[in-house]
Amino acid sequence: MNGAESLLKTLIDAGVEVCFSNPGTSEMQFVAAIDNCEGMQPVLALFEGVATGAADGYGRMAEKPAATLLHLGPGLANGMANLHNANRAGTPIVNIVGDHATYHLPFDAPLTSDVNGYSNLVSSWVRVSDSADDLAAAGAEAVVAAMEKAGQIATLIAPADHAWEESQGPAAVLPQPTLEQASDEVIQQAADALRSGEETAIFLGGKALLEPALTVAGRIAEATGVRLVCETFPARMQRGAGRVMVERLPYFGEMAADFLKDFKRIILVGSKSPVSFFAYPGKPSWLSPDDCETTNLAAPGMDVLTALEALAAALDVPAEPARIQPAAVPPIPEDGKLDPMGIGAVVANLMPEQAVVSDEAATCGLTLFPCTAGAAPHDWMMLTGGAIGQGLPLAVGAAVACPDRKVLALQADGSAMYTVQALWTMVREDLDITTVIINNGSYAILNIELQRVGVENAGPKALSMLDLTNPVIDWVSLAEGMGVPSTRATTVQEFHDQLRDAINHKGPRLIEAII
Amino acid sequence: MNGAESLLKTLIDAGVEVCFSNPGTSEMQFVAAIDNCEGMQPVLALFEGVATGAADGYGRMAEKPAATLLHLGPGLANGMANLHNANRAGTPIVNIVGDHATYHLPFDAPLTSDVNGYSNLVSSWVRVSDSADDLAAAGAEAVVAAMEKAGQIATLIAPADHAWEESQGPAAVLPQPTLEQASDEVIQQAADALRSGEETAIFLGGKALLEPALTVAGRIAEATGVRLVCETFPARMQRGAGRVMVERLPYFGEMAADFLKDFKRIILVGSKSPVSFFAYPGKPSWLSPDDCETTNLAAPGMDVLTALEALAAALDVPAEPARIQPAAVPPIPEDGKLDPMGIGAVVANLMPEQAVVSDEAATCGLTLFPCTAGAAPHDWMMLTGGAIGQGLPLAVGAAVACPDRKVLALQADGSAMYTVQALWTMVREDLDITTVIINNGSYAILNIELQRVGVENAGPKALSMLDLTNPVIDWVSLAEGMGVPSTRATTVQEFHDQLRDAINHKGPRLIEAII
Repeated sequence: MNGAESLLKTLIDAGVEVCFSNPGTSEMQFVAAIDNCEGMQPVLALFEGVATGAADGYGRMAEKPAATLLHLGPGLANGMANLHNANRAGTPIVNIVGDHATYHLPFDAPLTSDVNGYSNLVSSWVRVSDSADDLAAAGAEAVVAAMEKAGQIATLIAPADHAWEESQGPAAVLPQPTLEQASDEVIQQAADALRSGEETAIFLGGKALLEPALTVAGRIAEATGVRLVCETFPARMQRGAGRVMVERLPYFGEMAADFLKDFKRIILVGSKSPVSFFAYPGKPSWLSPDDCETTNLAAPGMDVLTALEALAAALDVPAEPARIQPAAVPPIPEDGKLDPMGIGAVVANLMPEQAVVSDEAATCGLTLFPCTAGAAPHDWMMLTGGAIGQGLPLAVGAAVACPDRKVLALQADGSAMYTVQALWTMVREDLDITTVIINNGSYAILNIELQRVGVENAGPKALSMLDLTNPVIDWVSLAEGMGVPSTRATTVQEFHDQLRDAINHKGPRLIEAII
Repeated sequence: MNGAESLLKTLIDAGVEVCFSNPGTSEMQFVAAIDNCEGMQPVLALFEGVATGAADGYGRMAEKPAATLLHLGPGLANGMANLHNANRAGTPIVNIVGDHATYHLPFDAPLTSDVNGYSNLVSSWVRVSDSADDLAAAGAEAVVAAMEKAGQIATLIAPADHAWEESQGPAAVLPQPTLEQASDEVIQQAADALRSGEETAIFLGGKALLEPALTVAGRIAEATGVRLVCETFPARMQRGAGRVMVERLPYFGEMAADFLKDFKRIILVGSKSPVSFFAYPGKPSWLSPDDCETTNLAAPGMDVLTALEALAAALDVPAEPARIQPAAVPPIPEDGKLDPMGIGAVVANLMPEQAVVSDEAATCGLTLFPCTAGAAPHDWMMLTGGAIGQGLPLAVGAAVACPDRKVLALQADGSAMYTVQALWTMVREDLDITTVIINNGSYAILNIELQRVGVENAGPKALSMLDLTNPVIDWVSLAEGMGVPSTRATTVQEFHDQLRDAINHKGPRLIEAII
């Protein structure tokens, strides 16, 4: 058994079931090994950013790593933007990056690159195998590394000769890592803050936005009146009718600072202190008030659920949470031209139970999120690292992880173009994804940002850099070219009918919503 | 005048005329400044890999740098694969990468990344500005750095506060760097090698494949009988009827080693010693015979033209070169199903004078290159670094650099998907590019490589990873979605008629050639 097959069997033994791939010559041994290894589903992506973004979506939903298979430094580079997002989301991923055979590297052939350097930029753990025998052992370590701190990126660099040489077979699966626990002292500090009677927020992020932790947070809120606030761009939030309501920190720094201005105490749970997404002339980076006291109950990567439970126990809270979201959706507007409110109302009304939403709707997303607060319970995933081109790949990965749930990709046009190749994989794998391309023909957020960074009277060349109407992108034609059955909606009624049909149909569909 | 405007004016003063852009919030000051600075053409790309690949194509043709404008580490990462190719091509490029305001970096906002680390992986020169005043000075240095060694990548990291703060205005343009010259001693060694009477090759790469150097090489060949051989994947080669004929080193290592086996001496001019593109089990990395003596007349980045002229002078060669390529094109096959030979014959027959070819035709390119040897004189550009997704962006950049020349993008389907967004920019800028998508529905090269790395009896999952027919990509629909007038050809006659029409029409066209 060669090194590649040993590694693949080890990954499967360790519970890795899916490999999002875009292989090249140096990864051919892994490709060949897939047929010899029961239990690994290979998913081909036509661009590495799709593969890494899909691994992110898979990891967020499955709470265990998928593998990726990438081709040397440039192949990894193509996937780095979405690995940046995955890093910020705390997603477990095992990247397998092929490299030239060890003895070939000194010859500096055209594809030679500093694979280690590329890997370190987006990975918490990087290792190059020492030999064919070592490849499987390194794989077992990679899976454990990916599960450390509740999820991180582990990159294993596999020289081609280690893949094709004979090995001693699979390595033993290693024990799963344990999560760091909050100290009794910090739990006591948080309890004291909540008993202070001062205006306090629990600022929730990461795994603290999944239902078990949210329910405990809701019980704490019932006992103390604390406000529950979430990160602006959560990796994954369980929300909708019947779940604990959480306020969302606004995106724009001024609005966020205003939102936070009366808080005297903030308790961080799975989140970091709120800071401005970008810097703006004369605006603060730090968003909390100067006199606000912060308690870091459980940093991202720690055991947030147990920390919240310990806090609840210290406070002797009731069994039922406060502020359960009632089922309530906005009325669908009278038929007319489509706008973000109309899209939000239709999505809220038609949201399937246990849908998974991939939200890269940018400016429009600001409206879609509140509109759907009281829709049927669902998971909502956001752009965690700000590197656009996440949404469609994330939907691919979520659909692979959750084949029995409907996935909705709510997607801005500009960002969609970044990793548009994801549409092809949706068809190839017959994934149950309804993609809504919200086409406003511009990088609309940048028109806002242009003013916010202090530009007045932007000229025609500047504005043309934010404009996507020359030429207009015909998303129906584009998506049909990759095999996705697609329609275009220009009115609320059309959008409603098309979304209803798409949701009732199992398999990939795309709706171009013109706003 | 703020730092952004000072930098832009400095770049323009230094001769930079085009900026291939995909900006975000941290680059808005540069976007705004474009309207205040006469002489900078902004070209929007819908993905950074298009911007960097276009800068590569521009630089290869214009022999001076374009700028790119990229958004922090992830934006740069999206452009890194084509910067890898540009690096291998020796192309001058000035990247302007925005970063967070200096004071914002410690807050680790979501898009914070090690921009310096990303930049160093693909740049020969990296600098972060020290202040708004320093930004323009750093820009002047960047242009010089980009022109060093006949072309390299210079990356200037521009923190947002340096862009928006007041500055003292543009910096002075710095003198152009001079190229390193071959020593008299090495010229003498090369002359001795050529006088040895042993089988000798001049191995040409980089600028040695442009007409002035080729003509000198041809004169040396006339005097000495030396064989002229070029790199497998030249950055830019001037060829066709009336130009000096050059043999091309085969791609596959075994064939390359066989090609080289009788040479006793190799003289490198603008190239590195030939090595295998990948490693294969039991096959050598080093391709020249063990008893072959190598003379490095002028390394890539040195003054190759002057070195060849000095060598010619030392040898007292005649005024006219040997082996001028006669005008000769293959006959167009009788009408029938399209194949690479048919495509090659039609392209050769219809090749416009002074066309610029971007060849990322992969397996099919192996046929197209020899077919067009005797076509009308043209420039031929290839995939220099092996990171696929170069071809369409390269065509964009070449067309911007050479608005009066027809650009032909001969493009494999699998690689085309990587940076398919380039089609949109072709329409936006009304570029005179005819794209031929050679659709064989597979990563065909990998089917060959799978066997070459020793895989026997590949299974169905393995083969599915190389297959692009599930679903079939409809390139006409895909390209029309981005506004490119497109047609499909399945016979030689259809392809001939469609290519003739596309060439006679000025502006972007796409032909999907089904093989």
